[in-house]
Amino acid sequence: MALRAALRNKCGLIGLLSQQSSCSSHGRVYVSPVLVAQRRNNSTSPKIKVDYDKGTGVAVIHMQSPPVNSLSLDFLTEFCIGVEKLEMDKSCRGVIITSSQPKVFSAGLDIMEMYGKTPERCGEFWKAVQEMWLKLYSSNMVTIAAINGSSPAGGCLMSLACDYRIMADNPRYSIGLNETQLGIVAPFWFKDTMANTVGHRTTELALELGLLYNPSEALKIGLVDQLVPEDQVLPTATQTMTKWLAIPDHARQITKSMMRKPTIDKLTSNREADIHNFVSFITKDSIQKSLRMYLEMLKKRKS
Amino acid sequence: MALRAALRNKCGLIGLLSQQSSCSSHGRVYVSPVLVAQRRNNSTSPKIKVDYDKGTGVAVIHMQSPPVNSLSLDFLTEFCIGVEKLEMDKSCRGVIITSSQPKVFSAGLDIMEMYGKTPERCGEFWKAVQEMWLKLYSSNMVTIAAINGSSPAGGCLMSLACDYRIMADNPRYSIGLNETQLGIVAPFWFKDTMANTVGHRTTELALELGLLYNPSEALKIGLVDQLVPEDQVLPTATQTMTKWLAIPDHARQITKSMMRKPTIDKLTSNREADIHNFVSFITKDSIQKSLRMYLEMLKKRKS
Amino acid sequence: MALRAALRNKCGLIGLLSQQSSCSSHGRVYVSPVLVAQRRNNSTSPKIKVDYDKGTGVAVIHMQSPPVNSLSLDFLTEFCIGVEKLEMDKSCRGVIITSSQPKVFSAGLDIMEMYGKTPERCGEFWKAVQEMWLKLYSSNMVTIAAINGSSPAGGCLMSLACDYRIMADNPRYSIGLNETQLGIVAPFWFKDTMANTVGHRTTELALELGLLYNPSEALKIGLVDQLVPEDQVLPTATQTMTKWLAIPDHARQITKSMMRKPTIDKLTSNREADIHNFVSFITKDSIQKSLRMYLEMLKKRKS
Repeated sequence: MALRAALRNKCGLIGLLSQQSSCSSHGRVYVSPVLVAQRRNNSTSPKIKVDYDKGTGVAVIHMQSPPVNSLSLDFLTEFCIGVEKLEMDKSCRGVIITSSQPKVFSAGLDIMEMYGKTPERCGEFWKAVQEMWLKLYSSNMVTIAAINGSSPAGGCLMSLACDYRIMADNPRYSIGLNETQLGIVAPFWFKDTMANTVGHRTTELALELGLLYNPSEALKIGLVDQLVPEDQVLPTATQTMTKWLAIPDHARQITKSMMRKPTIDKLTSNREADIHNFVSFITKDSIQKSLRMYLEMLKKRKS
Repeated sequence: MALRAALRNKCGLIGLLSQQSSCSSHGRVYVSPVLVAQRRNNSTSPKIKVDYDKGTGVAVIHMQSPPVNSLSLDFLTEFCIGVEKLEMDKSCRGVIITSSQPKVFSAGLDIMEMYGKTPERCGEFWKAVQEMWLKLYSSNMVTIAAINGSSPAGGCLMSLACDYRIMADNPRYSIGLNETQLGIVAPFWFKDTMANTVGHRTTELALELGLLYNPSEALKIGLVDQLVPEDQVLPTATQTMTKWLAIPDHARQITKSMMRKPTIDKLTSNREADIHNFVSFITKDSIQKSLRMYLEMLKKRKS
Repeated sequence: MALRAALRNKCGLIGLLSQQSSCSSHGRVYVSPVLVAQRRNNSTSPKIKVDYDKGTGVAVIHMQSPPVNSLSLDFLTEFCIGVEKLEMDKSCRGVIITSSQPKVFSAGLDIMEMYGKTPERCGEFWKAVQEMWLKLYSSNMVTIAAINGSSPAGGCLMSLACDYRIMADNPRYSIGLNETQLGIVAPFWFKDTMANTVGHRTTELALELGLLYNPSEALKIGLVDQLVPEDQVLPTATQTMTKWLAIPDHARQITKSMMRKPTIDKLTSNREADIHNFVSFITKDSIQKSLRMYLEMLKKRKS
């Protein structure tokens, strides 16, 4: 049932695109004709804003990289530095991640970082993607994703790396690891993180078909933990954080590490090989050709 | 709840038998008094029929070994050759497996291959069972089980090895790995395949009790993915195949391999030991005695 | 949803305490102001009573250590001897575990065994906890937990180690591994047992937050298999046992071992290291201080 519903979510070939362009399907209307690959105009503005409340020990990271918080090398670098600063501040016990952009949490990995780049640059980019996941999935802080918009591919991974996921109950939004729909493949640690969350079979179906789920489907399979009205996403995240912080930190941290360490160790002990795999795959002529076609389609839609 | 319901499905000692004989229990009537062990009359007819549509790249394998598509050495050999031919044909991208026999998808492993046979023959048989699973579970093609009848034991394994399972919504049909009810044991790779599909705990209950599930129970635990009216099983499989084939093959294949390779490697690296275990177990006096009693009960029911 | 509901179950800081003291929260009233740490008055009475019916091959272990069947070293030693005797009696095929104490199945590990004790004594205690789990989780007998009261922490572990769990449908009762709420940590084999039952993600949430579930929540996540009215817990366990015993013992035992051996092997091959870890952790000044504060709170509540 989830499969059939999720397949309906596709509006055109690529689910990710659906979120960015204007099309209508089964009562779902996408009204924001923006393009992931055409947002080079603000590269020097801060891509995240960190609000830290010393009183509560809780920080909120607002992702604010127009138009869709794509995970570029610059974005990831800034994000990782932001998380690391909070991690090293002993007084900071929890972090909420949310988006300042309308309708989108994060559109995922920036395709421009994978198209027409040198292997060295591709490797540098991939290392930053790994770093983002490693920092979040192993964080000693309580991490809550306040998912106030669509969250495909890398955006979904970022959510999955948190301790708890609260999503806006807006049927126009979707979430999922939809890489196969673009002809690329979610690597083993994306897969492990998803399987740790929704189980092996749901992950198999989701990854082979590149499924995007609307919020109620995502709740049903356990991809998110809770749905609330859009304007309640951040307040609910704050309330939930209070409950998590009622648990003694050291006991919660040891428990979290016990649950996640085997998955983290798999990447840390294969990090160079994983970078090598990504670079060999993404720089293949056939994959570059797929990406070019995808980018041309995006341009055509825009014009 | 599922346990209690599934236990109700037993009609007499052995669930498998229920499907083949005439008995009534809780509103379920089995009207086909056929016997698994007495179908030696057509050993030279083709046991499968393959319809391949070059236009769509989709093949349908019709299992047509009367009366209940038992998985004999001959059947398995023919089946594996059929799958391998399709696999080697680069134009074939998907295969649907279904039954031409009324009321049954496949009754599972042929008991006559395990009773009164030499160890060599038992080993040859088991190697063919392994081969069937390996070919299906690791297939590069999209594989869909169109389960238009009961599917106990080996029939269930064959379904589980596919990418997607559509079952006829007929409460008289059942599916499950019911080996323990016959006093035999599903080997580790049956267990792994089931656990990858329905999770560890459901597998534990199902295998320890040899549970057979009716279609709605099977859907609820995730043993099948979708129920449709009996005459819609094959059409729905064809429609579903179209959706799967919309995904770029290479991305789907790499993803499938990532999900299934660890489970496949466990068998391929222990294949001889697994054959040895099966042969030692099945040729034990106590097990042969159980099988003889089971076969005599089948004969008695028939007369 | 389960999370929010389970968090509501907390009545004060520590869920375990809720079961023992008089407080009211969201319609749940705890009326039994007993203290886990103050039950030294009957140390020489038998802590379990074993009723064995040779006719059916089924034994019932009644836990009868007032007030709350805390798992002290004495209790665990007696319990393990009782189970081992039944295991060695070839005629005994199944065992049902239940409580003779009102409102509680078992309150879990006895805190007095962890507070102010020598490392040697702590190690001896932990070895007994391991032994209880190893004996139950690997038992050749069918093991059914007839959970006729609350079952936090170690009491939950004891239930999880059985083959099947039937719980009284009384919303005042709760079950779960709530160790983190006391500032302590469930070790890896508690975690493995729970993950084998309810999956990775539910375990992650449950253990990080130390969640206690009421019976209907526990059923929903699969922590228990069946709910019945309180006076039907033992009769239902007996009926369920009959169904399990209809399966040939040897096939069920091999299957059970296949499902559980990897988890058991992880502890047996790390048993000394696990004891060492427990002793180092529990004898830390900070942990001893937490336990003292907890015990003082218990005393205060009583007076």
